[in-house]
Amino acid sequence: MLEELKKKVYEANMLLPKYGLVTFTWGNVSGVDREKKVFVIKPSGVPYEDLKPEDMVVVDFDGNKVEGAMNPSSDTPTHAWLYKKFDKIGGIVHTHSSYATSWAQSGRSIPCYGTTHADYYYGEVPCLRCLTEEEIEDAYELNTGKLIVDEFARMGKDPEAVSAVICKNHGPFAWGKDPEDAVHCAVVLEEVAKMAFRTELINPKVQPAPQELQDKHYYRKHGANAYYGQGGAK
Amino acid sequence: MLEELKKKVYEANMLLPKYGLVTFTWGNVSGVDREKKVFVIKPSGVPYEDLKPEDMVVVDFDGNKVEGAMNPSSDTPTHAWLYKKFDKIGGIVHTHSSYATSWAQSGRSIPCYGTTHADYYYGEVPCLRCLTEEEIEDAYELNTGKLIVDEFARMGKDPEAVSAVICKNHGPFAWGKDPEDAVHCAVVLEEVAKMAFRTELINPKVQPAPQELQDKHYYRKHGANAYYGQGGAK
Amino acid sequence: MLEELKKKVYEANMLLPKYGLVTFTWGNVSGVDREKKVFVIKPSGVPYEDLKPEDMVVVDFDGNKVEGAMNPSSDTPTHAWLYKKFDKIGGIVHTHSSYATSWAQSGRSIPCYGTTHADYYYGEVPCLRCLTEEEIEDAYELNTGKLIVDEFARMGKDPEAVSAVICKNHGPFAWGKDPEDAVHCAVVLEEVAKMAFRTELINPKVQPAPQELQDKHYYRKHGANAYYGQGGAK
Amino acid sequence: MLEELKKKVYEANMLLPKYGLVTFTWGNVSGVDREKKVFVIKPSGVPYEDLKPEDMVVVDFDGNKVEGAMNPSSDTPTHAWLYKKFDKIGGIVHTHSSYATSWAQSGRSIPCYGTTHADYYYGEVPCLRCLTEEEIEDAYELNTGKLIVDEFARMGKDPEAVSAVICKNHGPFAWGKDPEDAVHCAVVLEEVAKMAFRTELINPKVQPAPQELQDKHYYRKHGANAYYGQGGAK
Repeated sequence: MLEELKKKVYEANMLLPKYGLVTFTWGNVSGVDREKKVFVIKPSGVPYEDLKPEDMVVVDFDGNKVEGAMNPSSDTPTHAWLYKKFDKIGGIVHTHSSYATSWAQSGRSIPCYGTTHADYYYGEVPCLRCLTEEEIEDAYELNTGKLIVDEFARMGKDPEAVSAVICKNHGPFAWGKDPEDAVHCAVVLEEVAKMAFRTELINPKVQPAPQELQDKHYYRKHGANAYYGQGGAK
Repeated sequence: MLEELKKKVYEANMLLPKYGLVTFTWGNVSGVDREKKVFVIKPSGVPYEDLKPEDMVVVDFDGNKVEGAMNPSSDTPTHAWLYKKFDKIGGIVHTHSSYATSWAQSGRSIPCYGTTHADYYYGEVPCLRCLTEEEIEDAYELNTGKLIVDEFARMGKDPEAVSAVICKNHGPFAWGKDPEDAVHCAVVLEEVAKMAFRTELINPKVQPAPQELQDKHYYRKHGANAYYGQGGAK
Repeated sequence: MLEELKKKVYEANMLLPKYGLVTFTWGNVSGVDREKKVFVIKPSGVPYEDLKPEDMVVVDFDGNKVEGAMNPSSDTPTHAWLYKKFDKIGGIVHTHSSYATSWAQSGRSIPCYGTTHADYYYGEVPCLRCLTEEEIEDAYELNTGKLIVDEFARMGKDPEAVSAVICKNHGPFAWGKDPEDAVHCAVVLEEVAKMAFRTELINPKVQPAPQELQDKHYYRKHGANAYYGQGGAK
Repeated sequence: MLEELKKKVYEANMLLPKYGLVTFTWGNVSGVDREKKVFVIKPSGVPYEDLKPEDMVVVDFDGNKVEGAMNPSSDTPTHAWLYKKFDKIGGIVHTHSSYATSWAQSGRSIPCYGTTHADYYYGEVPCLRCLTEEEIEDAYELNTGKLIVDEFARMGKDPEAVSAVICKNHGPFAWGKDPEDAVHCAVVLEEVAKMAFRTELINPKVQPAPQELQDKHYYRKHGANAYYGQGGAK
């Protein structure tokens, strides 16, 4: 079973350069096996053109390597904590994609300005604070995961409805029901980050989309009454 | 005859990723058969790489599916109303193309700043208001079509001279004499939206192009005295 | 001899889509035969993928078609006047390339902000005024050519040192010693237009590059003491 | 041995168009042989598609050509001085890459806004002053090298920790342990320049990333305690 998961995680990683989300080795995708309580992740610092399915590293939810010849991604402790605490997610992706990272560097959450955003994310994609000096010194990557989980709880956000976050001065994390879906979310995030950037330059006084429009588009694609695509009730 | 129309609509849909107007399954093109009073449209939520001519769905002007194994695009009621009321158009396209959607999100009409715009669109490309909460709840996609038709009437705009519109917080619709021509309009719209964005950043006090220049360029390509291309009288 | 020129003009036209300077049929390149006092230009409104060398049209300096099955570009009278009056140029290109056209739409000349600009253009690339209503009505394309020539004379600019211009609310014209060189200038113009746009957004109070730096870079590549490349005296 | 270095320098030069850092012949990469006290550099003004390994020119640290049929890059004296004075660098690259050059034209150093920057460059990438009129007249390219070395000394910057600089009104130089590594630095520089540009437009009041975050990311990848990639101690 893990061979199949390794293949899926490998293929999802290869989508990152395909969709223009990464430069060099930046970025990583992982996928979880909930039964075995382990996840599979890209090795650290390996160029995408050299990557092979068998290079993927198996890690447990405490961030310990279970199997694999190479070091796992340096962001592994962040992934581990998210799998541990967000128990419905199946895949995680981290990139330095250009527009989402620019929002992260600016320290601002990405407002919902239209239906492209509302179709995927319910409300703004939050920008979290920087870690404190202590949090950085102590266990930087693990504390990044803890901050994401704690802040989602504090803000009352459901990680299934808001499947991405941007970390101040750093960049985005996105997740989904499996590794490919997580990459899908990361691509959408980059696109909505790009359009929000342009929207504000066209109209500096722009306001977020009306709540009823946000509701309509989100529930058109999600939940019991969804009618978008081929699987809906319509 | 519908097989031929399905092929044309399929090919026009495939132009959307070719010209970079869509991400994933966003966007749809339709084409009409005026004699049979039906139109052919892309199925909902199907990736472009999997799309086949025979997947196209046949729908009547009230939005009822006439033929096809799949659900038609969720925007079908908008297309239906436009075909019913704009009786000279032969194809319609809806996308979330990046610059046009950014203008839609900003809530501003796209001014005519130069001859690139004037060659295709007579005057600004209008940004319509958001639907009201009632209009959204009731029949969102149909009401989008009704708003477009009613606002064009109210503004005295001819849908042949202004073959595109942007819907606030949503994105653009464009149309033309057939599906390919509609896509052509959508490509031009994205390009003029991009240049208008940059024009205002270069000169925040910029004014629209003089009316006589707008007239000259529009009528150089349209109407009885057109002399651009190989079909003109010149 | 004209077969050879037609081939060169055809090849130069095909560089426009290669370098991303055109959408659809926008843009045209011509090349001159000074002995025969004619020039060869792209036909009007023909898509680049369908273009063939034998489609090129031969025109005299008064804009009359001398040979060719198709209508010449609608901008032909502009080209004709420039060849007549700028007697050292061998090729002309007109595009609606995105950044240069955005400057044209904004009504501003492109300042020389650095050595990339100074290596090719001596001083700013001027933005000319719009034509008057009378000039537009009378002979729009011919008057565009007249305005360029008259304004260069009025400003004391040498068309060899400033081998491009942008026409307000319209777009750029560039020229060179032959059709390929003219396209080269148009590519550089688009690049310096792009960087000038970004430069001003990074520093709204930016000033043009010092005159001595502009002199140094221009004369490093042009004139008797040039030492860039393999042909210089160095 | 120089044949091998020529091949490396050739291959590093060919990475410039691959990564979109150059237009036409703009840009050049060199690599040094510290034992022989010479370096190998691209010839001046040769298009990348025509370049061959044997075209590379061998030059000594005083800028004198040692071997090669062609003129070396006109920026050769700058490279020579940097090799002479920065004794740990093995490769140098100069480009007019679009975003880094826009920062150079604006006269501003590139602030460190996030971890993408901090992973590669310790602190801001400095923008140096323009050369004086005398420095330009006298020996422009050599004086560019001298200015870089003198300003790094004056600012107390270590060229290994800050492996790039931007020269006002001109563009970037980047360096590394070998020619390929220098190109790698130039690609990262362009990316951080792009994101810094967008970051400031999203939040005009943005401040640089906290110092402790900059330290954490730089030392995660550099120095004795590095743990990124497959070579670290972790």
